[in-house]
Amino acid sequence: MKPGKMRRLTVATFVVATLALGATGTASADDEDAIAYRQHIMKSLQEQTAALGKIMSGAAPDDNAVAHMETLALIASTALKSFEPKVPGGESKPEVWGDWDDFSGRMRKFAELTATMAQAAREGGKDAGLAHAIEALNCKSCHDVYRKPRSP
Amino acid sequence: MKPGKMRRLTVATFVVATLALGATGTASADDEDAIAYRQHIMKSLQEQTAALGKIMSGAAPDDNAVAHMETLALIASTALKSFEPKVPGGESKPEVWGDWDDFSGRMRKFAELTATMAQAAREGGKDAGLAHAIEALNCKSCHDVYRKPRSP
Repeated sequence: MKPGKMRRLTVATFVVATLALGATGTASADDEDAIAYRQHIMKSLQEQTAALGKIMSGAAPDDNAVAHMETLALIASTALKSFEPKVPGGESKPEVWGDWDDFSGRMRKFAELTATMAQAAREGGKDAGLAHAIEALNCKSCHDVYRKPRSP
Repeated sequence: MKPGKMRRLTVATFVVATLALGATGTASADDEDAIAYRQHIMKSLQEQTAALGKIMSGAAPDDNAVAHMETLALIASTALKSFEPKVPGGESKPEVWGDWDDFSGRMRKFAELTATMAQAAREGGKDAGLAHAIEALNCKSCHDVYRKPRSP
């Protein structure tokens, strides 16, 4: 074998080995932090959406409705940043980073729609905000594409 | 037995039976909603505190720090309302309602301290806000008194 070919093979082997390690190896502490951080944000979105849902269904008093909508807009504005480190794992499908343009576009749209909802709530009251809730909080449309199915 | 005494005994029996039913009976759907609603709020506080903690320990980038502090202040402002329905259960100790003056005073203080933290962050930046974080987010001081110990 020619020396040039051998060097190329060695490099190729190293690359393949590194990729395999990345795919199967234990996550580093930094990777675990990145996953935990975005999960804290997504879980707080989930809890605030559920709280607002209780109000929308009449199961909880509506005093906090405007505050929940403002909270959701604030959290939504932080979500994309938490996915910027390219660390697959947790409940995220690899497509988050594979289709980053689509994913990040949807996340920005989510932040915009919740901001519109919060502004309507601040200016026009609870019902004005809630008129935007179904469109703004269409969590499923992204989860169906970018979140791993949860075990039953 | 005199009729008056019998009536008093009957009333007393009714009261005791009602209290016993309240203490041991199955929670109504309304009660479950009240418990779920406050748990959504407390869990979102927990997730946002954890997210801010990741930043404070250097485990996550600090871009969202101000937003997390504003979010915490907003959620804290909604928490007391969610405990107003006197529905023991979940992780709440009965002392929440038994010592309501103390509990509600602490909750109001928590809302004030997080609002101060958020204002400092908005006006002076991340570090100005974080200088208030330890005092504002002293969750343990209330949980030790008002939350049931979690199973290990």
